[in-house]
Amino acid sequence: MELVSQNRCFGGTQSVYRHRSEICDGEMTLGLFLPPQAANGPVPLLWYLSGLTCTHENAMIKAGLQRHAAEHGLAVVFPDTSPRGEGVADDQAYDLGQGAGFYVNATQRPWARHFRMYDYIVTELPTLLMEEQPLNGQHGITGHSMGGHGALTIAFRNPELFRSVSAFAPIVNPTRSDWGRKQFSAYLGDDEAHWVDYDACLLLAERGWAGDILIDQGATDQFLDLLRPEAMANLMAERRQAGVMRMQAGYDHSYYFVASFGEDHVRWHAERLKAA
Amino acid sequence: MELVSQNRCFGGTQSVYRHRSEICDGEMTLGLFLPPQAANGPVPLLWYLSGLTCTHENAMIKAGLQRHAAEHGLAVVFPDTSPRGEGVADDQAYDLGQGAGFYVNATQRPWARHFRMYDYIVTELPTLLMEEQPLNGQHGITGHSMGGHGALTIAFRNPELFRSVSAFAPIVNPTRSDWGRKQFSAYLGDDEAHWVDYDACLLLAERGWAGDILIDQGATDQFLDLLRPEAMANLMAERRQAGVMRMQAGYDHSYYFVASFGEDHVRWHAERLKAA
Repeated sequence: MELVSQNRCFGGTQSVYRHRSEICDGEMTLGLFLPPQAANGPVPLLWYLSGLTCTHENAMIKAGLQRHAAEHGLAVVFPDTSPRGEGVADDQAYDLGQGAGFYVNATQRPWARHFRMYDYIVTELPTLLMEEQPLNGQHGITGHSMGGHGALTIAFRNPELFRSVSAFAPIVNPTRSDWGRKQFSAYLGDDEAHWVDYDACLLLAERGWAGDILIDQGATDQFLDLLRPEAMANLMAERRQAGVMRMQAGYDHSYYFVASFGEDHVRWHAERLKAA
Repeated sequence: MELVSQNRCFGGTQSVYRHRSEICDGEMTLGLFLPPQAANGPVPLLWYLSGLTCTHENAMIKAGLQRHAAEHGLAVVFPDTSPRGEGVADDQAYDLGQGAGFYVNATQRPWARHFRMYDYIVTELPTLLMEEQPLNGQHGITGHSMGGHGALTIAFRNPELFRSVSAFAPIVNPTRSDWGRKQFSAYLGDDEAHWVDYDACLLLAERGWAGDILIDQGATDQFLDLLRPEAMANLMAERRQAGVMRMQAGYDHSYYFVASFGEDHVRWHAERLKAA
């Protein structure tokens, strides 16, 4: 990994790295926060997956997670939301192509060559980070909106890798949402049998989750119809799934919402990763 | 004031307003955070003055002050750093004209018509905010870089208005710095006698400050030669000025530095404004 920038932050270091991704067949950028505790030995890692239109930078700059990560001794990685660059396929719409990878492995043209964010997050990037950074192999995962979808689906499919999971305003049921159907059709094709591996509600219904789940959702989020929190709330209650779904009065979809509850999420992961 | 946006944030509200400024002869934009306590009655106000190239938005998004302001019951205002717009004079350089008002009242062409940030911060905006917002008339002031210069100079000249003062990496001695001499020459003319009212070191030497002063400075700030913290450190020590000057090892000039020490500054102001 090539270091792009590094800033001291809450006694730790906030770095930006670039690296060649074999899986995405191109150059990827990411942010990595190491807490002060990393100077004394390897630490757990919290994955933060960002939402539509975001790069690695938005949450790194706006969410204020470093303060809490420094307090609890967690590293935080901020991956990009898609491959990028001139040779990478794209679309005019904000919700397809670059900045909108949806954490899937695309199988359809023109996306299949680069858009393999699922494998990038689940296999390539963990290996790379473990090789080069002071990490102890304990992973938790969270994310916002499209990134909340990514966090839930990736955790549910990989419980041996991710020991703790939470989400901010996640897209929980993309196969029933215009944030999902459009993209899955483009990336995965029209056979909906191939979509079920990327829908948090369908995955939880099929596989369950042995741990507990924390979800925060703004009650006046402008995208509630696309996020469909009621589908996850209903499912968690029906399955007696351990977890907390919090509907936060007055909050919208912005990073002010993420920042307001970031401390609770970092603590949630720290408590579960230390016990793991 | 016309409301542009409003987001729930740490139980309070982060708003952006536009308003017509008589003093700057144009439209100005600002951010205002009201803590949850403002629902129960008027609260003190912390002024955050931003640095070169910033708008009202940078600190509002990046500094993470809202969390601490919500805890301590302070409102925070984030003014812009200059007048803006098509009819407003500007310069190609990042450090002159729009985004670089230096918190002075310009007297020279082409700046004198709009660039009156000193009067805007000291007279027009306090009056407007007191009229329209739940504020109790207790003011503290802080800022970063050029905004740290603004905070120190404005506080030292207006101790009856600003009861508490702090700064992050301030330009402390602009009459001896290329961040100062160039701008003061343009805005105020070549007679350096007109510059002394805008130099924190010269003002402190002449007038003193009855309270105490908190200054944080990154020890590896890339702009140390322009900020000249040693001038202020020497002066405070010589005058036995009550205060704290902290040289923070490893920190640079970025908002990661501001965010890392924002909690201490908000607490500093909260303690002094409540006692005032």
